[in-house]
Amino acid sequence: MRSSRFLMACRREPVDVTPVWLMRQAGRYMPEYRTIRARHSMLDAIRTPELACEITLQPVNVFAVDAAIIFADILPILIGMGLDLDFVKGEGPAISNPVRSPADVDALRMPPTEENLPYTLEAIRLVRRELDGRVPLIGFAGAPFTLASYAIEGGGSKHHVRTKSFMHAEPDAWHRLMDKLATVLGEYLVAQVQAGAQALQVFDSWAGVLSPADYRAFVLPYTQHVIERARSTGVPVIYFGTDLNGMLPLVRKTGADVFGLDWRIGIDDAWHQLGEDIAIQGNLDPVTLLAPWPEIRRGIDDVLMRVAGRPGHIFNLGHGILPETPVDNVRRLVDYVHTWGTGEKSDG
Amino acid sequence: MRSSRFLMACRREPVDVTPVWLMRQAGRYMPEYRTIRARHSMLDAIRTPELACEITLQPVNVFAVDAAIIFADILPILIGMGLDLDFVKGEGPAISNPVRSPADVDALRMPPTEENLPYTLEAIRLVRRELDGRVPLIGFAGAPFTLASYAIEGGGSKHHVRTKSFMHAEPDAWHRLMDKLATVLGEYLVAQVQAGAQALQVFDSWAGVLSPADYRAFVLPYTQHVIERARSTGVPVIYFGTDLNGMLPLVRKTGADVFGLDWRIGIDDAWHQLGEDIAIQGNLDPVTLLAPWPEIRRGIDDVLMRVAGRPGHIFNLGHGILPETPVDNVRRLVDYVHTWGTGEKSDG
Repeated sequence: MRSSRFLMACRREPVDVTPVWLMRQAGRYMPEYRTIRARHSMLDAIRTPELACEITLQPVNVFAVDAAIIFADILPILIGMGLDLDFVKGEGPAISNPVRSPADVDALRMPPTEENLPYTLEAIRLVRRELDGRVPLIGFAGAPFTLASYAIEGGGSKHHVRTKSFMHAEPDAWHRLMDKLATVLGEYLVAQVQAGAQALQVFDSWAGVLSPADYRAFVLPYTQHVIERARSTGVPVIYFGTDLNGMLPLVRKTGADVFGLDWRIGIDDAWHQLGEDIAIQGNLDPVTLLAPWPEIRRGIDDVLMRVAGRPGHIFNLGHGILPETPVDNVRRLVDYVHTWGTGEKSDG
Repeated sequence: MRSSRFLMACRREPVDVTPVWLMRQAGRYMPEYRTIRARHSMLDAIRTPELACEITLQPVNVFAVDAAIIFADILPILIGMGLDLDFVKGEGPAISNPVRSPADVDALRMPPTEENLPYTLEAIRLVRRELDGRVPLIGFAGAPFTLASYAIEGGGSKHHVRTKSFMHAEPDAWHRLMDKLATVLGEYLVAQVQAGAQALQVFDSWAGVLSPADYRAFVLPYTQHVIERARSTGVPVIYFGTDLNGMLPLVRKTGADVFGLDWRIGIDDAWHQLGEDIAIQGNLDPVTLLAPWPEIRRGIDDVLMRVAGRPGHIFNLGHGILPETPVDNVRRLVDYVHTWGTGEKSDG
């Protein structure tokens, strides 16, 4: 198990073929997933360990992916901290009592993970049992900035005006907020490993809205804390964010073992900027999976040729799979990556 | 006039103080602008040369900005090509008959600028007369990819799925579309200079959704054509796009005299990657203008210290001014940039 090609690549050890998994590999593009979600809300599916386990295993059973990732979401951790979160159909997450003042920050609770997110820990235990060593299981959490942004905006946001304004106008309260989030998120990741997660990914979905100067002053120390706690368990830690290609030297300072790259940069350029001592995950544009197969193949070839077999590459998309992606294209991608450079033919 | 500090900086010549103008400097944050827009729709304001002239001059009269930019929009050029464009309140631009097939591409007309956009050419003539040499006037157009994306999506888009799918599935029609757009846009920019524009900016608002491989194969040649036509007039050409920090070497290949940078990268890092022979415009995060003044000043200082007086820097935001920006912060920013490093005090 410990010698799986995904975990080996995280440690930059040579592997037989490039490991591959896909962000949102358990998701709406799969009919099996849609069947479950037709009967259960997003929060119900996350909070019912048997459902979360079943969804987690769906892509592992259908495709030859090299890792599973627990079915969960970055936001439910905020519920136990005192925020009323719901997923509104067609609109995404919504928080009815967002953080808007220093007093709101101080009112946030910091419950232990076993009390706040017992269902995800139980789902991890179930999945490990069901997987029975087939592939490693990835646990995950959001990064402090991304959680702070959701907590302050109350949902998605175009310009993150409230978040940045709070950061600039209330720096003391901002740092208290980030400190609370970093502590709770770090413990959550540790608890996931104790429950059975064999690698961890930290999603910083929104960090790319920041300038490097703001990222360094208001965010980086908290990302570092979370990644340090996560790495203290001994499992590899992946840091993923989009729109960070202008601040890769700061990304390097997070301390992650692996950086998950978006598709807006050549993987070779990014690796050169990040340095030798980090593994790379990525970075095909997810929209490419809607193209005719020769165009998908061209995209995969472009990524793999730039990496040229260098140890420490995990193939993935540069962002999550889109709901309209044809299932067959996902199967072909996974198989094509696995035969690339072996002399075998897998052209779908 | 030709020796204005804005135009000198575009040519990387030393200047007395750093020139500054702001994208969307004529816009909703100004009460004078809102007064006009309360009585006139967006398209009416653009298509009435007297109104476009008045709006263009508003920020020049109120702030000490070093350039005016003609009040117009990148999309009306599509109307004369056969697309039904409207600006829907609160939702942005909407095209009721978007380009969805090769036949739609072939049906696009290519009217001469004098017929398609006479109102903007007339507005440029009016503004030049009114400015009477106070500051230079910038003309602008969208870049071919950004126009293609609007034409295909029919408006804004999150993942640009239709655009990329068309590009991948119908490459011949895609290239015909880009060729038509590049020709019409190039002529539009030339006509603006003939009408009096003294510099040009090409807005590639959406190019940052592409991978470098797709940008190179499907977009770059057309951007190059437009910029080459624009430069043939002898005026400096600025290329602006966001989320392009992972492909600055490709940005360099566009041939622009100046690159307009977003705020997601240190201006010194970007300049280093772009090379010595290009000027840089940018790059303060526009949301910073909503912060308390000491935080705004910190942001301005960060940009200017990284540049350290190197010739060829035009101060700007990394994106357009937000509507909720306090007018007084804009005034303080402009004045502070102008006294920076001179020993004079302008701390608002």
